[in-house]
Amino acid sequence: MKGFEILKIGIYPGSFDPVTNGHLDIISRSSGIVDKLIVAILYNPNKSNTLFTIEERVCLLEETTKHFPNVEIDSFSGLLVDYIQTVNANVIFRGLRAVTDFEYEMQMAQINKKLCSKAETLFMATSADYSFLSSSVVRELAYFGASTIGLVPDIVQQKIKEKY
Amino acid sequence: MKGFEILKIGIYPGSFDPVTNGHLDIISRSSGIVDKLIVAILYNPNKSNTLFTIEERVCLLEETTKHFPNVEIDSFSGLLVDYIQTVNANVIFRGLRAVTDFEYEMQMAQINKKLCSKAETLFMATSADYSFLSSSVVRELAYFGASTIGLVPDIVQQKIKEKY
Amino acid sequence: MKGFEILKIGIYPGSFDPVTNGHLDIISRSSGIVDKLIVAILYNPNKSNTLFTIEERVCLLEETTKHFPNVEIDSFSGLLVDYIQTVNANVIFRGLRAVTDFEYEMQMAQINKKLCSKAETLFMATSADYSFLSSSVVRELAYFGASTIGLVPDIVQQKIKEKY
Amino acid sequence: MKGFEILKIGIYPGSFDPVTNGHLDIISRSSGIVDKLIVAILYNPNKSNTLFTIEERVCLLEETTKHFPNVEIDSFSGLLVDYIQTVNANVIFRGLRAVTDFEYEMQMAQINKKLCSKAETLFMATSADYSFLSSSVVRELAYFGASTIGLVPDIVQQKIKEKY
Amino acid sequence: MKGFEILKIGIYPGSFDPVTNGHLDIISRSSGIVDKLIVAILYNPNKSNTLFTIEERVCLLEETTKHFPNVEIDSFSGLLVDYIQTVNANVIFRGLRAVTDFEYEMQMAQINKKLCSKAETLFMATSADYSFLSSSVVRELAYFGASTIGLVPDIVQQKIKEKY
Amino acid sequence: MKGFEILKIGIYPGSFDPVTNGHLDIISRSSGIVDKLIVAILYNPNKSNTLFTIEERVCLLEETTKHFPNVEIDSFSGLLVDYIQTVNANVIFRGLRAVTDFEYEMQMAQINKKLCSKAETLFMATSADYSFLSSSVVRELAYFGASTIGLVPDIVQQKIKEKY
Repeated sequence: MKGFEILKIGIYPGSFDPVTNGHLDIISRSSGIVDKLIVAILYNPNKSNTLFTIEERVCLLEETTKHFPNVEIDSFSGLLVDYIQTVNANVIFRGLRAVTDFEYEMQMAQINKKLCSKAETLFMATSADYSFLSSSVVRELAYFGASTIGLVPDIVQQKIKEKY
Repeated sequence: MKGFEILKIGIYPGSFDPVTNGHLDIISRSSGIVDKLIVAILYNPNKSNTLFTIEERVCLLEETTKHFPNVEIDSFSGLLVDYIQTVNANVIFRGLRAVTDFEYEMQMAQINKKLCSKAETLFMATSADYSFLSSSVVRELAYFGASTIGLVPDIVQQKIKEKY
Repeated sequence: MKGFEILKIGIYPGSFDPVTNGHLDIISRSSGIVDKLIVAILYNPNKSNTLFTIEERVCLLEETTKHFPNVEIDSFSGLLVDYIQTVNANVIFRGLRAVTDFEYEMQMAQINKKLCSKAETLFMATSADYSFLSSSVVRELAYFGASTIGLVPDIVQQKIKEKY
Repeated sequence: MKGFEILKIGIYPGSFDPVTNGHLDIISRSSGIVDKLIVAILYNPNKSNTLFTIEERVCLLEETTKHFPNVEIDSFSGLLVDYIQTVNANVIFRGLRAVTDFEYEMQMAQINKKLCSKAETLFMATSADYSFLSSSVVRELAYFGASTIGLVPDIVQQKIKEKY
Repeated sequence: MKGFEILKIGIYPGSFDPVTNGHLDIISRSSGIVDKLIVAILYNPNKSNTLFTIEERVCLLEETTKHFPNVEIDSFSGLLVDYIQTVNANVIFRGLRAVTDFEYEMQMAQINKKLCSKAETLFMATSADYSFLSSSVVRELAYFGASTIGLVPDIVQQKIKEKY
Repeated sequence: MKGFEILKIGIYPGSFDPVTNGHLDIISRSSGIVDKLIVAILYNPNKSNTLFTIEERVCLLEETTKHFPNVEIDSFSGLLVDYIQTVNANVIFRGLRAVTDFEYEMQMAQINKKLCSKAETLFMATSADYSFLSSSVVRELAYFGASTIGLVPDIVQQKIKEKY
């Protein structure tokens, strides 16, 4: 039996522009597997056409995950494998929806494994209810004024309305 | 921070007829994520044309995993979700090689989730070195007298030679 | 504008051993597109290891589709394209769940089109809720005594219980 | 038997920049299934680097579909589900060529279904002859001065020549 | 510039039960790339439910490829990599139709490469006209008395008629 | 037996920005199949944001392939099928890694075949070791200062370091 002394720290990286109910489903399920889950927002300083700023995204994630005691929100730029080492994470969580996801994610997992052999990527199947859902779908619906009820948390929906 | 009091128990189910180096790679990586990993051999009493008996498969897995202190070998028949509950497992590990794997595994994960909401399936990308490897490939090579060096542990290779 | 004089007759072929809630979803949606929908059970006289007999499958489909006024149940053996011509059908409906489905169905559609240029195959995406569901999954769960509630209509579930 | 009083109106949406022989194949086959088929050109006012203007695309489609009595050409901007409701359409037709198509289209179909439960998406397999063909392939060939004979209707080919 | 002294010998392995127009397309195209092409029929002595005997398959292939001066017909049992060495072949040709083909073929190519580093597998895309065609489709159509005109060479069609 | 008088000339086209160890693996294997292999760098005069200039890419390929006596480096712009004819090439080589590759490559092969019936595309499975590797992955790692050892030849790695 392995000792209890080592904390298992997981990372769930993404852009979260904005966080969707699909993301929250993965956060809920992956936070039950590790001692601490860091939801890590990838911040690209060169990309200015996001819907929400990095500060807004942190804020919305903190608000919508506050009922998970072992979830923390953070942001990073640069390579995931560099960030992982600064927070001593053992595992990376990624949701899988479809085959196109799968191949890209497999490639990323193998590169991250090569760059940092400590980093183990664990994939979870997204719930069938959210298999069609992505942040870019939400942004497009929002742009055309369509309802995003049931796709994102209520607070995100309010913020989207304020944007348009 | 979640308490330390709950043991994380993982299951790695399969037929393991025979165990390959690809399986051992998944065992090595997944055993580092949970407190205890049970490698659970699915035993089908109606299927008699296996290469190794269930007792031999248990034996080969015990021999080849004995250097992992938190790995146990077990066997079960029936539904995986029933077995999971008898051993109080929290997570199921599965290796993913290719797209055809992926779709089948996604289906199984969703059914298991539906039947037992506690059961969380975590997928790992097989190492690129073993992406072409499966037990059935090993059995076919063995049947035609081809070498299986580098595909299975040494002890498995010896047992295969004794069979033919 | 095309004349109204030509009835649109659709076929939804399958084994339906047994009919699932996923099948009923496709029946419900496709029956709204044509004037008459024939649910056509493929009967293979050489295959005896089915869960339900052809008579039972007809019966269960009739019972579970009786609220659709334009749905009829029928059975056939042999080639679909031959059957289509005997009932003057214009379109074939097929549900699509996953990529492996897709490639097989594309092949069938192209062969059927070649053999009978009148036969047009229309694919529908299965509802996300049923994306993991198939008759063979239902049969396997039933075999091991697991619940099939929510996967099949109530009457099918009762019949399954009586079988085991 | 369902009454005859309800017109079946289908939509075949796309950019059609330009219309190809693959599009005409889908138009020909889908127009035989519904009472009226509206070929609906998606018009993006923010996108100016198209090969043909929206007026030219309408014109080319009208010219090449004039022998189908129940086909109308229209254009729209914004969300497809909003447009569908303004024209009282019951079904959306989409051609499927490959797996990458398939996953994107499945996602769109599920979103459109969620936003407008009346909208049923029907997929057709493109004819094998056109499985490699797309408007972007035609534009690239045209750009480099390669022949597009057999890929697009004659009138489209003439217009392409005039452009370059 | 490499010397001319080394003959390039290609293998096109398969069951060819029966040879189809899709196979002949690959034979025609691959025989133009190597100095000699051996069409190698995989013979499984334990499998007795084939449509044509191994002698009949050799005969039909010889008849339908006799106009290719550099094509030879042969048969083998056991592992392809063992056979390749007995005939000094440099390359293996395989046709690719769909994604499910692709993953299986990639696996086989990697195993064959591992077992015999000389063996290089070259894949060709089947012509779009034959993308739906396989020997098993032909056998099924033949079984139900459907026409196989355009799918197989004339002599194969005659032999099929004599069988039924 | 075909005469020896016709040189087999192969093309391996790509952007090679920069050449990776995966490219060199394909060059090594494909150069053994043809009499002469031309590695043909696709040059897009309108695209200025490449990592290496066309001259640098030619230079790096010449340096890293100089031990292959039958390999030549060239560059071209415009359509591949036009270039093929100017150099009298018989075959095009392409590496296949994943399903998304596969579908795009199948489409390209069918278009090239249509435009120039002489041009036969031959696909090779990339070695499992390089299945995750692409020039864009290398560029991204280089951008963030991560090591590219083992991914590209030493000389490419030095040039990358000089760029950043």
